[in-house]
Amino acid sequence: MNNFEFYSPARLVFGKGSEDNIGNLLKPYAKKILLHYGGGSIKKSGLYDRVKASLEAAGVAYCELGGVVPNPRLSLAHEGIELCRKENVELILAVGGGSVIDSAKAIAMGVYYDGDVWDMYETGKAIEKALPVAVVLTIPAAGSEASGDTVITNEEKALKYGYGSPKLRPLLSVMDPELFFTLPKNQVANGITDMMSHVFERYFTNTTEVELTDGLCETVLRTIMHNAPRVVENAEDYAAWCEIGFAGTVAHNGLVGCGRAQDWGCHNMEHELSAIYDIAHGAGLAVLTPAWMEYVWKDNVAMFVQFAVKVMGVDGSYREPELIVKEGIRRLRAFFASIGQPATLREMGIGEDRLEEMARKATHECFGQEHPIGGLKKLYWQDVLAIYKLAL
Amino acid sequence: MNNFEFYSPARLVFGKGSEDNIGNLLKPYAKKILLHYGGGSIKKSGLYDRVKASLEAAGVAYCELGGVVPNPRLSLAHEGIELCRKENVELILAVGGGSVIDSAKAIAMGVYYDGDVWDMYETGKAIEKALPVAVVLTIPAAGSEASGDTVITNEEKALKYGYGSPKLRPLLSVMDPELFFTLPKNQVANGITDMMSHVFERYFTNTTEVELTDGLCETVLRTIMHNAPRVVENAEDYAAWCEIGFAGTVAHNGLVGCGRAQDWGCHNMEHELSAIYDIAHGAGLAVLTPAWMEYVWKDNVAMFVQFAVKVMGVDGSYREPELIVKEGIRRLRAFFASIGQPATLREMGIGEDRLEEMARKATHECFGQEHPIGGLKKLYWQDVLAIYKLAL
Repeated sequence: MNNFEFYSPARLVFGKGSEDNIGNLLKPYAKKILLHYGGGSIKKSGLYDRVKASLEAAGVAYCELGGVVPNPRLSLAHEGIELCRKENVELILAVGGGSVIDSAKAIAMGVYYDGDVWDMYETGKAIEKALPVAVVLTIPAAGSEASGDTVITNEEKALKYGYGSPKLRPLLSVMDPELFFTLPKNQVANGITDMMSHVFERYFTNTTEVELTDGLCETVLRTIMHNAPRVVENAEDYAAWCEIGFAGTVAHNGLVGCGRAQDWGCHNMEHELSAIYDIAHGAGLAVLTPAWMEYVWKDNVAMFVQFAVKVMGVDGSYREPELIVKEGIRRLRAFFASIGQPATLREMGIGEDRLEEMARKATHECFGQEHPIGGLKKLYWQDVLAIYKLAL
Repeated sequence: MNNFEFYSPARLVFGKGSEDNIGNLLKPYAKKILLHYGGGSIKKSGLYDRVKASLEAAGVAYCELGGVVPNPRLSLAHEGIELCRKENVELILAVGGGSVIDSAKAIAMGVYYDGDVWDMYETGKAIEKALPVAVVLTIPAAGSEASGDTVITNEEKALKYGYGSPKLRPLLSVMDPELFFTLPKNQVANGITDMMSHVFERYFTNTTEVELTDGLCETVLRTIMHNAPRVVENAEDYAAWCEIGFAGTVAHNGLVGCGRAQDWGCHNMEHELSAIYDIAHGAGLAVLTPAWMEYVWKDNVAMFVQFAVKVMGVDGSYREPELIVKEGIRRLRAFFASIGQPATLREMGIGEDRLEEMARKATHECFGQEHPIGGLKKLYWQDVLAIYKLAL
């Protein structure tokens, strides 16, 4: 086990009806907040009105900024930063999924920064201060409700970069699994895929003697995969949504990655896809992850055997590890197909033409100095290109 | 799954050598601290000198209060409260195991309370403020390094009561598993038993549809039981200590109890034993837990079958659940014996004479109004007495 720090201070308020208390929950922290959200879905569902009613009842003043889109845009964050400064906002309440929360975090750190907040995403420079962010979660997926991470798309540069800081961990996050009942099926599938990938990125490691976190990763993955078909079949299965929702938070609050080297290769490769093609992050991951596994498994056969046996339920008592590993990958593909995910890039309308460009971008090769991505196997642009091609 | 709140803000700084940075870690929070510890072991090991050197190098002033004993005493907490007030202490650094941390928490809340801090333990009244507590952990066991709980013994009244508040969660805890190398074997066994019990008290529940936390509990228990023999056989097995130490924190930071009714019957019954007989908490739990299981399993057969199969590795494909459950309990007893725990109260010098008195105290029956303890099965004083007798 490697030395580590674990710090996950976001307070999780979980369960039926908990969003109706959001005003009282925020009152100790702010007199004026920015209510930040996406499009029409929270208005149609009535959530928007209930959140506003709760804020008003608690005497918490607010201004509003809607319009966050999937793969949230830098330009809207700029707008939010201006608004917060003008209105003396003390806290940002993100009502939505990962895109809204990530956008809120960009605004939260931008308010105290003199330059363009994109600098943080591009250079990774540390921040000293950010507005507190609170969350009412409507899509279990990104884990952004517990993490200090944010991903933003710079539309002008067609770049999608992530940034992380402990200062960006939400103050508190409210999760009512009943809010997930109305999610479209593709968002359900994408959320499930994304949270599984958050575990995969930590699970697949060359760090040995990490038995506890291995086991935590495996439990989270099994729980997600066991409950996914239940919510796909019955969108109002509250108990199954509780498992999926809570698992999505545990997958990304840092716990399951403690003491181990992490990978993040698939996330990096996927960000290039959705920056250029504007596809859903989860769909991109569903296609890339099995391709990545096929490309890298020989670099750590034991890890992939363990995955096949402990997570995918493959019988481990065969003498050919390759058969065990391949059956594990086959079952993962079958699982993704069963929740409605595409199996290839072509199904998402992505052809060969820009693969090399994306591979060079993913590793920053085209920006002068190449930074290989991944952990279990270091991936240079040629490796990334090979994986994209496997995923075609 | 029940509605819940999860809030675990304690920052865990984990790994070899991390205690040598304690001065820098505390510097942002306090100019003057109370260094609180037990007896001679930290002096003998050199830890005391290293912590002082780190504080001095960072320019953090300190005063000292040693002398914490297992089953920490109210009288020492009173002394600490006076000292902190006199010296304008801003933070308490507990260097030790659960007893030292629990004592530090008593002092931390007592400083801001006008009456006797015992009031909190006796009446459960809420606190508004406490000094921050930081920890350098020397015994993985109590989980107090991440929890808001404290247990104190009132020597005059021969009562051992617990108290909990989110305000008592440590600010940060440093855990270097190398510090565990010099623990005596009985402390190792007691620590392992205590952390397992923290999971048991949450795991054995009548709340259904809590698959994720069931799985997390099972993983933590399996990890502890897999690594326990390694540290018992080789006190310097760093990798195994990492698993045990980290598991001890996860067992008690609140995560594995989210969304489920909890039990705490065995802890309550054990507190009576160690208040009167001053036995080790872990040893008491090792004796009481299997007896409790025998007494209550029929109230939730499915839960005990799951425990036997998922945790104790019993083959679950037999038609008589009773056989599966009993084999699970038998294996748990065998495990406790293998790490050197006693199997009966008599082995610890406890006879029949005060069992009824303890049973009436455990349920507060002797104080006028009985509060049954336990969750999976409510235990009245007669039940507690029956369990004590089973454990004889």
